[in-house]
Amino acid sequence: MSARTSRGRRPGAPDTRAEVLAAARASFAEKGFRGTTIRAVGAAAGVDPALVHHYFGSKDDLFLAALEMPVDPREVLAPVVAQGPDGAGERLLRTFLSVWDDPDMQVRLLAVVRSVLTDDGGTLLKEGFIPVVVGPVLAQLVADRPDVRIPLVTSQVVGLIVMRYVIAFPPMAQMPAEDLVARVGPVLQHYLTGDLP
Amino acid sequence: MSARTSRGRRPGAPDTRAEVLAAARASFAEKGFRGTTIRAVGAAAGVDPALVHHYFGSKDDLFLAALEMPVDPREVLAPVVAQGPDGAGERLLRTFLSVWDDPDMQVRLLAVVRSVLTDDGGTLLKEGFIPVVVGPVLAQLVADRPDVRIPLVTSQVVGLIVMRYVIAFPPMAQMPAEDLVARVGPVLQHYLTGDLP
Repeated sequence: MSARTSRGRRPGAPDTRAEVLAAARASFAEKGFRGTTIRAVGAAAGVDPALVHHYFGSKDDLFLAALEMPVDPREVLAPVVAQGPDGAGERLLRTFLSVWDDPDMQVRLLAVVRSVLTDDGGTLLKEGFIPVVVGPVLAQLVADRPDVRIPLVTSQVVGLIVMRYVIAFPPMAQMPAEDLVARVGPVLQHYLTGDLP
Repeated sequence: MSARTSRGRRPGAPDTRAEVLAAARASFAEKGFRGTTIRAVGAAAGVDPALVHHYFGSKDDLFLAALEMPVDPREVLAPVVAQGPDGAGERLLRTFLSVWDDPDMQVRLLAVVRSVLTDDGGTLLKEGFIPVVVGPVLAQLVADRPDVRIPLVTSQVVGLIVMRYVIAFPPMAQMPAEDLVARVGPVLQHYLTGDLP
Protein backbone atom coordinates (compact mmCIF):
# COMPACT_ATOMS: atom_id res chain seq x y z
CA MET A 1 0.00 0.00 0.00
CA SER A 2 2.70 2.48 0.94
CA ALA A 3 4.63 1.59 -2.20
CA ARG A 4 1.55 2.37 -4.24
CA THR A 5 1.17 5.91 -2.92
CA SER A 6 4.89 6.63 -2.64
CA ARG A 7 5.29 5.94 -6.33
CA GLY A 8 2.47 8.36 -7.04
CA ARG A 9 0.53 5.87 -9.16
CA ARG A 10 -3.21 5.79 -9.38
CA PRO A 11 -4.94 3.35 -7.03
CA GLY A 12 -5.12 -0.11 -8.56
CA ALA A 13 -2.05 0.39 -10.75
CA PRO A 14 0.10 -2.30 -9.09
CA ASP A 15 -2.66 -4.85 -9.74
CA THR A 16 -2.88 -3.76 -13.34
CA ARG A 17 0.88 -4.12 -13.68
CA ALA A 18 0.70 -7.66 -12.26
CA GLU A 19 -2.15 -8.51 -14.62
CA VAL A 20 -0.20 -7.28 -17.62
CA LEU A 21 2.80 -9.33 -16.50
CA ALA A 22 0.65 -12.43 -16.03
CA ALA A 23 -0.82 -11.95 -19.50
CA ALA A 24 2.68 -11.51 -20.93
CA ARG A 25 3.94 -14.70 -19.24
CA ALA A 26 0.97 -16.67 -20.55
CA SER A 27 1.49 -15.35 -24.05
CA PHE A 28 5.26 -15.97 -24.15
CA ALA A 29 4.69 -19.49 -22.80
CA GLU A 30 1.89 -20.34 -25.23
CA LYS A 31 2.84 -18.40 -28.34
CA GLY A 32 6.59 -18.02 -27.94
CA PHE A 33 8.51 -14.79 -28.32
CA ARG A 34 7.65 -13.98 -31.93
CA GLY A 35 3.98 -14.86 -31.46
CA THR A 36 3.59 -12.37 -28.63
CA THR A 37 2.65 -8.74 -29.27
CA ILE A 38 2.34 -5.80 -26.91
CA ARG A 39 -1.12 -5.24 -28.37
CA ALA A 40 -2.32 -8.79 -27.63
CA VAL A 41 -0.85 -8.71 -24.13
CA GLY A 42 -2.69 -5.45 -23.47
CA ALA A 43 -5.92 -6.92 -24.81
CA ALA A 44 -5.56 -10.05 -22.67
CA ALA A 45 -5.02 -7.89 -19.59
CA GLY A 46 -7.84 -5.54 -20.56
CA VAL A 47 -5.63 -2.46 -20.86
CA ASP A 48 -4.45 -0.16 -23.59
CA PRO A 49 -1.18 -1.25 -25.30
CA ALA A 50 0.22 2.16 -24.36
CA LEU A 51 -0.05 1.18 -20.70
CA VAL A 52 1.95 -1.99 -21.38
CA HIS A 53 4.65 0.22 -22.90
CA HIS A 54 4.39 2.60 -19.96
CA TYR A 55 4.97 -0.16 -17.41
CA PHE A 56 7.47 -2.34 -19.22
CA GLY A 57 8.99 -0.47 -22.16
CA SER A 58 9.66 -2.49 -25.31
CA LYS A 59 8.64 -6.05 -26.05
CA ASP A 60 12.23 -7.06 -25.24
CA ASP A 61 11.93 -5.41 -21.82
CA LEU A 62 8.55 -7.03 -21.25
CA PHE A 63 10.10 -10.39 -22.10
CA LEU A 64 12.88 -9.94 -19.52
CA ALA A 65 10.31 -8.87 -16.93
CA ALA A 66 8.16 -11.92 -17.72
CA LEU A 67 11.19 -14.20 -17.33
CA GLU A 68 11.80 -12.56 -13.94
CA MET A 69 15.43 -11.95 -14.80
CA PRO A 70 17.02 -10.66 -11.58
CA VAL A 71 19.44 -8.55 -13.63
CA ASP A 72 19.34 -7.07 -17.08
CA PRO A 73 22.22 -8.81 -18.88
CA ARG A 74 22.39 -5.94 -21.36
CA GLU A 75 23.31 -3.56 -18.53
CA VAL A 76 25.65 -5.97 -16.78
CA LEU A 77 27.56 -6.66 -19.98
CA ALA A 78 27.69 -3.05 -21.19
CA PRO A 79 31.15 -2.42 -19.63
CA VAL A 80 32.48 -5.59 -21.25
CA VAL A 81 31.25 -4.39 -24.62
CA ALA A 82 32.54 -0.85 -24.06
CA GLN A 83 36.13 -2.10 -23.78
CA GLY A 84 36.00 -3.68 -27.22
CA PRO A 85 36.88 -7.12 -28.57
CA ASP A 86 40.45 -7.41 -27.22
CA GLY A 87 40.36 -9.63 -24.16
CA ALA A 88 36.56 -9.71 -24.32
CA GLY A 89 36.46 -13.50 -23.85
CA GLU A 90 37.99 -13.32 -20.39
CA ARG A 91 36.11 -10.15 -19.36
CA LEU A 92 32.82 -11.62 -20.54
CA LEU A 93 33.36 -14.78 -18.54
CA ARG A 94 34.59 -12.93 -15.43
CA THR A 95 31.51 -10.71 -15.44
CA PHE A 96 29.22 -13.65 -16.13
CA LEU A 97 30.70 -15.66 -13.24
CA SER A 98 30.59 -12.71 -10.83
CA VAL A 99 26.82 -12.55 -11.33
CA TRP A 100 26.14 -16.29 -11.41
CA ASP A 101 28.42 -17.16 -8.47
CA ASP A 102 26.42 -14.86 -6.18
CA PRO A 103 24.21 -17.32 -4.26
CA ASP A 104 21.02 -15.21 -4.23
CA MET A 105 21.40 -14.35 -7.88
CA GLN A 106 22.13 -17.97 -8.75
CA VAL A 107 18.87 -19.22 -7.25
CA ARG A 108 16.90 -16.70 -9.28
CA LEU A 109 18.86 -17.26 -12.49
CA LEU A 110 18.46 -21.02 -12.17
CA ALA A 111 14.70 -20.57 -12.06
CA VAL A 112 14.93 -18.66 -15.34
CA VAL A 113 17.20 -21.29 -16.91
CA ARG A 114 14.92 -24.14 -15.84
CA SER A 115 11.91 -22.37 -17.32
CA VAL A 116 13.61 -21.75 -20.68
CA LEU A 117 15.23 -25.21 -20.84
CA THR A 118 11.94 -26.99 -20.17
CA ASP A 119 10.05 -24.72 -22.57
CA ASP A 120 8.70 -26.98 -25.29
CA GLY A 121 10.66 -26.43 -28.48
CA GLY A 122 12.95 -23.92 -26.80
CA THR A 123 11.26 -20.94 -28.44
CA LEU A 124 11.80 -18.70 -25.40
CA LEU A 125 15.52 -19.30 -25.72
CA LYS A 126 15.97 -19.34 -29.47
CA GLU A 127 13.45 -16.69 -30.47
CA GLY A 128 13.59 -14.68 -27.26
CA PHE A 129 16.56 -14.81 -24.96
CA ILE A 130 19.36 -15.40 -27.46
CA PRO A 131 18.27 -12.84 -30.10
CA VAL A 132 17.05 -10.28 -27.54
CA VAL A 133 19.76 -10.46 -24.93
CA VAL A 134 22.76 -12.47 -26.02
CA GLY A 135 22.83 -11.59 -29.69
CA PRO A 136 22.93 -7.79 -29.48
CA VAL A 137 25.67 -7.89 -26.83
CA LEU A 138 27.85 -10.42 -28.63
CA ALA A 139 27.25 -8.78 -32.01
CA GLN A 140 29.30 -5.84 -30.75
CA LEU A 141 32.23 -8.11 -29.91
CA VAL A 142 32.50 -10.51 -32.82
CA ALA A 143 35.07 -9.88 -35.53
CA ASP A 144 32.70 -10.97 -38.30
CA ARG A 145 30.17 -13.71 -39.18
CA PRO A 146 27.89 -13.31 -36.17
CA ASP A 147 25.80 -16.28 -37.37
CA VAL A 148 28.81 -18.51 -36.84
CA ARG A 149 30.43 -16.90 -33.81
CA ILE A 150 27.44 -16.09 -31.59
CA PRO A 151 26.08 -19.67 -31.49
CA LEU A 152 29.58 -20.98 -30.70
CA VAL A 153 30.11 -18.57 -27.80
CA THR A 154 26.60 -19.27 -26.56
CA SER A 155 27.12 -23.04 -26.72
CA GLN A 156 30.17 -22.86 -24.45
CA VAL A 157 28.44 -20.53 -21.99
CA VAL A 158 25.28 -22.67 -21.92
CA GLY A 159 27.44 -25.75 -21.27
CA LEU A 160 29.10 -23.96 -18.34
CA ILE A 161 25.72 -22.99 -16.91
CA VAL A 162 24.51 -26.60 -17.09
CA MET A 163 27.68 -28.11 -15.62
CA ARG A 164 28.50 -25.51 -12.96
CA TYR A 165 25.03 -24.43 -11.84
CA VAL A 166 22.17 -26.63 -13.10
CA ILE A 167 23.71 -29.99 -12.20
CA ALA A 168 26.62 -28.58 -10.16
CA PHE A 169 29.08 -31.25 -11.29
CA PRO A 170 31.59 -31.05 -8.43
CA PRO A 171 34.89 -30.49 -10.29
CA MET A 172 33.23 -27.75 -12.35
CA ALA A 173 31.11 -26.27 -9.57
CA GLN A 174 34.13 -25.98 -7.28
CA MET A 175 36.55 -24.61 -9.86
CA PRO A 176 37.70 -21.14 -8.73
CA ALA A 177 36.23 -18.45 -10.97
CA GLU A 178 39.63 -17.13 -12.00
CA ASP A 179 40.80 -20.62 -13.03
CA LEU A 180 37.70 -20.93 -15.16
CA VAL A 181 38.34 -17.49 -16.67
CA ALA A 182 41.90 -18.53 -17.53
CA ARG A 183 40.81 -21.87 -19.01
CA VAL A 184 37.62 -20.96 -20.88
CA GLY A 185 38.16 -17.24 -21.54
CA PRO A 186 40.61 -17.94 -24.39
CA VAL A 187 38.07 -20.30 -25.97
CA LEU A 188 35.41 -17.58 -25.92
CA GLN A 189 37.96 -15.17 -27.37
CA HIS A 190 38.73 -17.70 -30.12
CA TYR A 191 35.03 -17.95 -30.94
CA LEU A 192 34.61 -14.15 -30.87
CA THR A 193 37.60 -13.03 -32.88
CA GLY A 194 39.82 -16.01 -33.73
CA ASP A 195 40.57 -17.47 -37.12
CA LEU A 196 37.61 -19.78 -37.71
CA PRO A 197 37.23 -22.05 -40.73
CA MET B 1 6.34 -64.78 -28.36
CA SER B 2 8.62 -65.93 -31.14
CA ALA B 3 11.43 -63.81 -29.71
CA ARG B 4 10.97 -65.51 -26.38
CA THR B 5 11.37 -69.01 -27.76
CA SER B 6 13.98 -68.13 -30.35
CA ARG B 7 16.24 -66.80 -27.60
CA GLY B 8 15.75 -70.03 -25.73
CA ARG B 9 14.71 -68.34 -22.50
CA ARG B 10 12.33 -69.85 -20.04
CA PRO B 11 8.69 -68.76 -20.38
CA GLY B 12 8.04 -65.56 -18.47
CA ALA B 13 11.62 -64.36 -18.65
CA PRO B 14 10.89 -61.29 -20.84
CA ASP B 15 8.39 -60.09 -18.24
CA THR B 16 10.92 -60.58 -15.48
CA ARG B 17 13.44 -58.59 -17.48
CA ALA B 18 10.92 -55.77 -17.90
CA GLU B 19 10.15 -55.85 -14.18
CA VAL B 20 13.82 -55.60 -13.30
CA LEU B 21 14.23 -52.69 -15.69
CA ALA B 22 11.19 -50.91 -14.22
CA ALA B 23 12.59 -51.41 -10.72
CA ALA B 24 15.97 -50.07 -11.86
CA ARG B 25 14.37 -46.97 -13.43
CA ALA B 26 12.40 -46.28 -10.27
CA SER B 27 15.49 -46.67 -8.12
CA PHE B 28 17.76 -44.48 -10.28
CA ALA B 29 15.04 -41.82 -10.41
CA GLU B 30 14.34 -41.87 -6.67
CA LYS B 31 17.73 -42.67 -5.18
CA GLY B 32 20.10 -41.49 -7.88
CA PHE B 33 22.99 -43.48 -9.27
CA ARG B 34 25.00 -43.98 -6.10
CA GLY B 35 21.93 -44.84 -4.05
CA THR B 36 20.98 -47.69 -6.38
CA THR B 37 22.32 -51.22 -5.90
CA ILE B 38 21.90 -54.36 -7.98
CA ARG B 39 20.79 -56.09 -4.78
CA ALA B 40 18.02 -53.57 -4.04
CA VAL B 41 16.83 -53.56 -7.66
CA GLY B 42 16.62 -57.36 -7.54
CA ALA B 43 14.71 -57.23 -4.27
CA ALA B 44 12.27 -54.64 -5.63
CA ALA B 45 11.63 -56.82 -8.70
CA GLY B 46 11.37 -59.97 -6.56
CA VAL B 47 14.32 -61.71 -8.21
CA ASP B 48 17.79 -62.81 -7.22
CA PRO B 49 20.53 -60.18 -7.77
CA ALA B 50 22.34 -62.76 -9.90
CA LEU B 51 19.46 -62.59 -12.38
CA VAL B 52 19.84 -58.80 -12.59
CA HIS B 53 23.49 -59.36 -13.45
CA HIS B 54 22.51 -62.05 -15.92
CA TYR B 55 20.12 -59.77 -17.79
CA PHE B 56 21.98 -56.49 -17.61
CA GLY B 57 25.60 -57.01 -16.61
CA SER B 58 27.14 -54.43 -14.28
CA LYS B 59 25.40 -51.56 -12.50
CA ASP B 60 26.84 -49.27 -15.19
CA ASP B 61 25.22 -51.40 -17.90
CA LEU B 62 21.95 -51.50 -15.97
CA PHE B 63 22.07 -47.72 -15.75
CA LEU B 64 22.48 -47.34 -19.52
CA ALA B 65 19.62 -49.81 -20.08
CA ALA B 66 17.41 -47.88 -17.65
CA LEU B 67 18.20 -44.62 -19.47
CA GLU B 68 17.17 -46.36 -22.71
CA MET B 69 20.35 -45.21 -24.41
CA PRO B 70 19.93 -46.20 -28.06
CA VAL B 71 23.70 -46.73 -28.33
CA ASP B 72 26.41 -47.53 -25.85
CA PRO B 73 28.68 -44.47 -26.01
CA ARG B 74 31.56 -46.56 -24.67
CA GLU B 75 31.40 -48.75 -27.79
CA VAL B 76 30.82 -45.89 -30.21
CA LEU B 77 33.78 -43.95 -28.85
CA ALA B 78 36.15 -46.92 -28.59
CA PRO B 79 37.72 -46.28 -32.05
CA VAL B 80 38.26 -42.62 -31.13
CA VAL B 81 40.07 -43.66 -27.98
CA ALA B 82 42.05 -46.36 -29.77
CA GLN B 83 43.71 -43.78 -32.02
CA GLY B 84 45.12 -41.87 -29.06
CA PRO B 85 45.07 -38.22 -28.02
CA ASP B 86 46.44 -36.66 -31.23
CA GLY B 87 43.51 -35.22 -33.15
CA ALA B 88 41.10 -36.73 -30.66
CA GLY B 89 39.12 -33.47 -30.35
CA GLU B 90 38.04 -33.54 -33.98
CA ARG B 91 37.52 -37.31 -34.10
CA LEU B 92 35.47 -37.21 -30.90
CA LEU B 93 33.24 -34.49 -32.27
CA ARG B 94 32.88 -36.12 -35.71
CA THR B 95 31.81 -39.41 -34.13
CA PHE B 96 29.49 -37.64 -31.71
CA LEU B 97 27.81 -35.69 -34.53
CA SER B 98 27.47 -38.76 -36.77
CA VAL B 99 25.39 -40.42 -34.05
CA TRP B 100 23.41 -37.36 -32.98
CA ASP B 101 22.70 -36.08 -36.51
CA ASP B 102 20.94 -39.34 -37.37
CA PRO B 103 17.24 -38.40 -37.08
CA ASP B 104 16.03 -41.64 -35.44
CA MET B 105 18.91 -41.66 -33.02
CA GLN B 106 18.40 -37.98 -32.25
CA VAL B 107 14.81 -38.50 -31.14
CA ARG B 108 15.84 -41.24 -28.77
CA LEU B 109 18.89 -39.40 -27.44
CA LEU B 110 16.83 -36.27 -26.84
CA ALA B 111 14.49 -38.28 -24.65
CA VAL B 112 17.50 -39.36 -22.58
CA VAL B 113 18.85 -35.80 -22.38
CA ARG B 114 15.48 -34.42 -21.32
CA SER B 115 15.19 -37.03 -18.59
CA VAL B 116 18.65 -36.32 -17.18
CA LEU B 117 18.34 -32.52 -17.52
CA THR B 118 15.02 -32.45 -15.68
CA ASP B 119 16.24 -34.90 -13.03
CA ASP B 120 16.09 -33.01 -9.76
CA GLY B 121 19.60 -32.14 -8.64
CA GLY B 122 21.11 -33.67 -11.77
CA THR B 123 22.30 -36.79 -9.93
CA LEU B 124 21.72 -39.05 -12.94
CA LEU B 125 24.11 -36.87 -14.92
CA LYS B 126 26.73 -36.04 -12.32
CA GLU B 127 26.81 -39.32 -10.41
CA GLY B 128 25.76 -41.56 -13.27
CA PHE B 129 26.21 -40.55 -16.85
CA ILE B 130 29.36 -38.45 -16.61
CA PRO B 131 31.36 -40.77 -14.32
CA VAL B 132 30.06 -43.98 -15.91
CA VAL B 133 30.12 -43.08 -19.59
CA VAL B 134 31.93 -39.84 -20.31
CA GLY B 135 34.63 -40.01 -17.67
CA PRO B 136 36.17 -43.40 -18.51
CA VAL B 137 36.28 -42.56 -22.23
CA LEU B 138 37.78 -39.09 -21.81
CA ALA B 139 40.19 -40.26 -19.11
CA GLN B 140 42.00 -42.22 -21.83
CA LEU B 141 42.42 -39.10 -23.95
CA VAL B 142 43.41 -36.37 -21.50
CA ALA B 143 47.04 -35.41 -21.14
CA ASP B 144 46.76 -35.00 -17.37
CA ARG B 145 44.50 -33.51 -14.67
CA PRO B 146 41.28 -35.32 -15.61
CA ASP B 147 39.41 -33.35 -12.91
CA VAL B 148 40.10 -30.17 -14.85
CA ARG B 149 39.95 -31.41 -18.44
CA ILE B 150 36.95 -33.76 -18.38
CA PRO B 151 34.49 -31.14 -17.04
CA LEU B 152 35.73 -28.62 -19.62
CA VAL B 153 35.28 -31.02 -22.56
CA THR B 154 31.91 -32.07 -21.20
CA SER B 155 30.76 -28.47 -20.80
CA GLN B 156 31.41 -27.70 -24.48
CA VAL B 157 29.72 -30.90 -25.65
CA VAL B 158 26.70 -30.34 -23.39
CA GLY B 159 26.40 -26.80 -24.74
CA LEU B 160 26.41 -28.14 -28.29
CA ILE B 161 23.71 -30.67 -27.43
CA VAL B 162 21.50 -27.95 -25.97
CA MET B 163 22.03 -25.48 -28.83
CA ARG B 164 22.00 -27.88 -31.79
CA TYR B 165 19.48 -30.49 -30.65
CA VAL B 166 17.47 -29.54 -27.56
CA ILE B 167 16.49 -26.04 -28.67
CA ALA B 168 17.72 -26.40 -32.29
CA PHE B 169 18.91 -22.79 -32.51
CA PRO B 170 18.84 -22.35 -36.29
CA PRO B 171 22.42 -21.16 -37.02
CA MET B 172 23.77 -23.97 -34.85
CA ALA B 173 21.26 -26.64 -35.89
CA GLN B 174 21.94 -25.98 -39.57
CA MET B 175 25.73 -25.76 -39.34
CA PRO B 176 27.25 -28.56 -41.46
CA ALA B 177 28.82 -31.22 -39.25
CA GLU B 178 32.26 -30.79 -40.81
CA ASP B 179 32.18 -27.02 -40.18
CA LEU B 180 31.36 -27.71 -36.56
CA VAL B 181 34.18 -30.27 -36.37
CA ALA B 182 36.61 -27.70 -37.77
CA ARG B 183 35.39 -24.94 -35.43
CA VAL B 184 34.86 -26.79 -32.15
CA GLY B 185 37.20 -29.78 -32.58
CA PRO B 186 40.30 -27.66 -31.82
CA VAL B 187 38.62 -26.39 -28.65
CA LEU B 188 37.99 -29.95 -27.46
CA GLN B 189 41.60 -30.79 -28.33
CA HIS B 190 42.74 -27.77 -26.30
CA TYR B 191 40.72 -28.96 -23.32
CA LEU B 192 42.01 -32.55 -23.73
CA THR B 193 45.71 -31.95 -24.22
CA GLY B 194 46.44 -28.22 -24.50
CA ASP B 195 48.42 -26.05 -22.14
CA LEU B 196 45.86 -25.15 -19.46
CA PRO B 197 46.54 -22.82 -16.53
